[in-house]
Amino acid sequence: MIVVMRAGAAPEEVRKVADQLEGMGLRLHISQGVERTVIGVIGGRVEEATAAAIEALEEVERVVPILEPYKLASRRYKEGGSRFDLGGGVEIGGEKVLVIAGPCAVESLEQMQQTARAVKAAGARLLRGGAFKPRTSPYSFQGMEREGLEILAQVRRETGLLITTEVMDPYNLEMVAEYADVVQIGTRNMQNFHLLREVGRIKKPVLLKRGMCATLEEWLMAAEYIMSGGNQQVILCERGIRTFDTYTRNTLDLTAVPSLKQLTHLPVVVDPSHGTGKWKLVGPMSRAAVAAGADGLLIEVHPHPEQAVSDGPQSLTPERFAGLMRELTAVASAVGRGI
Amino acid sequence: MIVVMRAGAAPEEVRKVADQLEGMGLRLHISQGVERTVIGVIGGRVEEATAAAIEALEEVERVVPILEPYKLASRRYKEGGSRFDLGGGVEIGGEKVLVIAGPCAVESLEQMQQTARAVKAAGARLLRGGAFKPRTSPYSFQGMEREGLEILAQVRRETGLLITTEVMDPYNLEMVAEYADVVQIGTRNMQNFHLLREVGRIKKPVLLKRGMCATLEEWLMAAEYIMSGGNQQVILCERGIRTFDTYTRNTLDLTAVPSLKQLTHLPVVVDPSHGTGKWKLVGPMSRAAVAAGADGLLIEVHPHPEQAVSDGPQSLTPERFAGLMRELTAVASAVGRGI
Amino acid sequence: MIVVMRAGAAPEEVRKVADQLEGMGLRLHISQGVERTVIGVIGGRVEEATAAAIEALEEVERVVPILEPYKLASRRYKEGGSRFDLGGGVEIGGEKVLVIAGPCAVESLEQMQQTARAVKAAGARLLRGGAFKPRTSPYSFQGMEREGLEILAQVRRETGLLITTEVMDPYNLEMVAEYADVVQIGTRNMQNFHLLREVGRIKKPVLLKRGMCATLEEWLMAAEYIMSGGNQQVILCERGIRTFDTYTRNTLDLTAVPSLKQLTHLPVVVDPSHGTGKWKLVGPMSRAAVAAGADGLLIEVHPHPEQAVSDGPQSLTPERFAGLMRELTAVASAVGRGI
Amino acid sequence: MIVVMRAGAAPEEVRKVADQLEGMGLRLHISQGVERTVIGVIGGRVEEATAAAIEALEEVERVVPILEPYKLASRRYKEGGSRFDLGGGVEIGGEKVLVIAGPCAVESLEQMQQTARAVKAAGARLLRGGAFKPRTSPYSFQGMEREGLEILAQVRRETGLLITTEVMDPYNLEMVAEYADVVQIGTRNMQNFHLLREVGRIKKPVLLKRGMCATLEEWLMAAEYIMSGGNQQVILCERGIRTFDTYTRNTLDLTAVPSLKQLTHLPVVVDPSHGTGKWKLVGPMSRAAVAAGADGLLIEVHPHPEQAVSDGPQSLTPERFAGLMRELTAVASAVGRGI
Repeated sequence: MIVVMRAGAAPEEVRKVADQLEGMGLRLHISQGVERTVIGVIGGRVEEATAAAIEALEEVERVVPILEPYKLASRRYKEGGSRFDLGGGVEIGGEKVLVIAGPCAVESLEQMQQTARAVKAAGARLLRGGAFKPRTSPYSFQGMEREGLEILAQVRRETGLLITTEVMDPYNLEMVAEYADVVQIGTRNMQNFHLLREVGRIKKPVLLKRGMCATLEEWLMAAEYIMSGGNQQVILCERGIRTFDTYTRNTLDLTAVPSLKQLTHLPVVVDPSHGTGKWKLVGPMSRAAVAAGADGLLIEVHPHPEQAVSDGPQSLTPERFAGLMRELTAVASAVGRGI
Repeated sequence: MIVVMRAGAAPEEVRKVADQLEGMGLRLHISQGVERTVIGVIGGRVEEATAAAIEALEEVERVVPILEPYKLASRRYKEGGSRFDLGGGVEIGGEKVLVIAGPCAVESLEQMQQTARAVKAAGARLLRGGAFKPRTSPYSFQGMEREGLEILAQVRRETGLLITTEVMDPYNLEMVAEYADVVQIGTRNMQNFHLLREVGRIKKPVLLKRGMCATLEEWLMAAEYIMSGGNQQVILCERGIRTFDTYTRNTLDLTAVPSLKQLTHLPVVVDPSHGTGKWKLVGPMSRAAVAAGADGLLIEVHPHPEQAVSDGPQSLTPERFAGLMRELTAVASAVGRGI
Repeated sequence: MIVVMRAGAAPEEVRKVADQLEGMGLRLHISQGVERTVIGVIGGRVEEATAAAIEALEEVERVVPILEPYKLASRRYKEGGSRFDLGGGVEIGGEKVLVIAGPCAVESLEQMQQTARAVKAAGARLLRGGAFKPRTSPYSFQGMEREGLEILAQVRRETGLLITTEVMDPYNLEMVAEYADVVQIGTRNMQNFHLLREVGRIKKPVLLKRGMCATLEEWLMAAEYIMSGGNQQVILCERGIRTFDTYTRNTLDLTAVPSLKQLTHLPVVVDPSHGTGKWKLVGPMSRAAVAAGADGLLIEVHPHPEQAVSDGPQSLTPERFAGLMRELTAVASAVGRGI
Repeated sequence: MIVVMRAGAAPEEVRKVADQLEGMGLRLHISQGVERTVIGVIGGRVEEATAAAIEALEEVERVVPILEPYKLASRRYKEGGSRFDLGGGVEIGGEKVLVIAGPCAVESLEQMQQTARAVKAAGARLLRGGAFKPRTSPYSFQGMEREGLEILAQVRRETGLLITTEVMDPYNLEMVAEYADVVQIGTRNMQNFHLLREVGRIKKPVLLKRGMCATLEEWLMAAEYIMSGGNQQVILCERGIRTFDTYTRNTLDLTAVPSLKQLTHLPVVVDPSHGTGKWKLVGPMSRAAVAAGADGLLIEVHPHPEQAVSDGPQSLTPERFAGLMRELTAVASAVGRGI
């Protein structure tokens, strides 16, 4: 942490701030520049609260953090990327790009069976489908709940595909974790700290979607919540951020992929369906995600997008998905990976 | 809802879409323009899912919603603004601008007593203070929890000030609601739909903070969740949105105040402390909020900002708060209100 | 400037960077922390190019600027605010809040005469009106050009109101400056550096609108361009920034007013018409701007908004403007100022 | 255009608005819904000014445009993509992905010769380098101007590489166009309408960078300015937009590539150097751009990034650039293109 004093701060003012920092057991280095004096903390980790308290001092202009606030999620904590088994030998973080596909919401057994068979045939390894749905309107369909989970379980037995589904609440975590191979945390819950702590206690991998306006640091701190609870199997999922641009539903921040590869060891997947909101853009952005180094993709597929209870406009038909998988195989190979 | 067909859509394609809409029991009006055909739904409310499904059709360019999706929160539902009693004759939404003041977090009995006495003397009617704190870092202080609520209760008894404090979780709602006169929903929980439903079942007024990147419509839909559960006493709190600008902690969207006055009957308060992140800006923005028509203010006050466990840089000292209250009285009077 | 070395940088790598900085004549202070080494530049101003070059080094994690890059625009350059005479004893930056009013575009002599008489009667001191219009579409009306300037001149003679009008191009600067009392730089030209340099050479006050996505620092650097050319009479005009929110045309960043009061000595005015895009919001946001400490307002007034060639939806009628001026007088008085 | 009337608008109010529209020669269709009446314009193109004037009416809630405002730039104007020759048989918009490389600024003959030889050997077809530099600070290096152009011309003769360089001002357009094979319009000038009109009159291809906070529609309208002047050879260049995220210099909006492919026939290139601001991210994002369907790339290369007068942190060394070109060849081939 570096403390920049206000212009014209008197030596005794600098001393006062330094005393307060030293009183917290920190070791300092004071640099008196021509226009500003700067105090550098060179020993001891500074708590967030300490930094804020120091910044509240009248004599202080601002405080510049130097170290990243996450530890377990940091690349430095674990050189080389994390890879882990999701079950049945399906791995994330390795050479193969993992494709997760399925509808936004579980609507019926037939819908899920039809989708599962199609995406499996095309090469997907996990099936997605929401049984609990976060909906902007209280009057919209909120998901089939346990009945939806039962459908997922049945389709899992029939096809052998692993299952990922969203948990919206600590209340239902036990139930969801019983059915899911990968538990998903949605974008609106990225900073639902209670939920993060609870999924930190389970043994299942967690797919953590980026909050709609979360910085990379906030996102990694959310991962840190889960990891500090004991669960190291966190997969980060970029799904678009909110910007001024309205042509697409969100602005897919694909640069987050290589950026995260520098900051963290955790695997990174991309959701081009929510990231764009338009099925015609899903193909190009899936190819781009793989070329940028994503470890996986989360793609919405629905047998009849025009009948979907949600996200129809961004869902691929099974035929289009199969075509995309062939394209992705070529791109993955061009960057030294497989699907 | 208006459905804009793709350029060059054939009559039979238009017919197909129209049939689908009519099959849902909707009444239509088809306008064939020179360059585009447009289908207007003139009878029947269109579900969100329906709109999405129609937009998923290949022949459709886009769907334009015409009606606002909220009902109970709409200005049209209740002409004139809502005003309600928070307890002990303290009212929100009336002629008087309500000032809520106190520290970010409850830290000790002494801190709360000292603050409460000072803000009461200066004219505040409610005391704020968090017992459960949403913190970006899992390693930061997370609040005094029940002990903090007990401190609030004691200070309430001693000073007669009403209490507002945040609930982060349905688990603790009953406990928090037992102590609080106004239950606060934080910015990160604005779309925690389970929590919204639960506070919809209690009888206490709810202060609903705007999500960091929520549109006015999403915010009002969050209020609709609470209201559709039976609790009509929702207070909206603007606290700044996230933009590209980094000079301030958030960008206080003060225009939300008069905008909401046109869209909804619910009272609107402003939090200039989180909205700016700097105590020197709290005074001017508090005055501006009152001039823009806010029904109340939520201001962070701490006896020793440089010792605060959080939000020190944006907290006023009791002396500065007292000075501000005098200024606010003059501004309120200039716009025909009192404090 | 502070240089943060990468984690694990070896002493010789630190030495290499230090040598490069010292080779530029800078004096340094090296702080070796437990996790990172930090090099502080304590003597000598660092060029932007130098900072970038240092940041390009592999061993360097990032460079943190400490000093603000503007000089003449800085509050420290001139304690107390700047106030200057715009002509005829009309002052900006003093006790009185200056109101500038008029239509977006000059459309006809009658329109300008009618508007000018009305806004003068209501208390405005300057008349606005564009003769050159920046328009998103090449097919839209681009302004009356010299004929429009002639109309402004005639109305000026008839009413005694000062004139402010936009210059879009160095080509027309001489012509515009001949007619205008205050030359306006539009939001899309805030970083048209050639134009900034040229207005730096004239003797007329310049109203510099904030770019749609400009930070405060970039905006002050644009002012610095003008001031470094010799023209110190710069007025900053906040007119809304672009954010994710679409309810209003722009997001009026009113906090910029008190923020700028800390950073610069230049006067600050607010344009609530472009800032909101809706005339119903202009009144509340004008009151708020005055309460926040603005030195002036720029308000669109049109005798027949529904016939305006541009910006009709955000224009007040003369009657509404007169009513607003009465309200503003009360608010200005509450904050110790007049209109 | 669709006009949505306010809730509860009386029949005579609807009539009044309809009369005004019909008075402009437009043909209408009035749909009286249960909650709102909607007027659709079905014949005649509506001017921007008309739409604004109608929206200014008290009885009108809002106006929804249906048609895109650009014509010449529209995909519908020219089915299939545009491809054009930049000189010497180098084509844009065809099967081959065009790579443009070089430093931010022309600094010396040696620097340019060294860069040109290296990027040519690696497969680049155009050399970039700025002789006129838009700089945030008036105190920074502003470019070598004509001397820089002369250097570019010499390197062009020596290597055969085509040249692209930025024009900042109509004043210098003739001079720049004399030297450049492709004239570049920078991000800060995307809405410098005078400059756009002037480049519309020349015969050279124009590379039009996206404004930092421009929507796709505004960007295409800027292209329309150029095209309506007679110059159809416009290349669009995505270079990142400004968002809340600060880890990267800008947020590269790669989804703009496939989106533009649906909206316009113009070629699209990507600048991952400005788009990310960090050379380590340039490789992955270049690969991603090609996979997303970009027609070209604009990459900053400098022989000594740590000595560059600008943009060092985002410049590749010639060695890294050569390595990247090999990767790009594989990705291009995977999507059916060459380099």
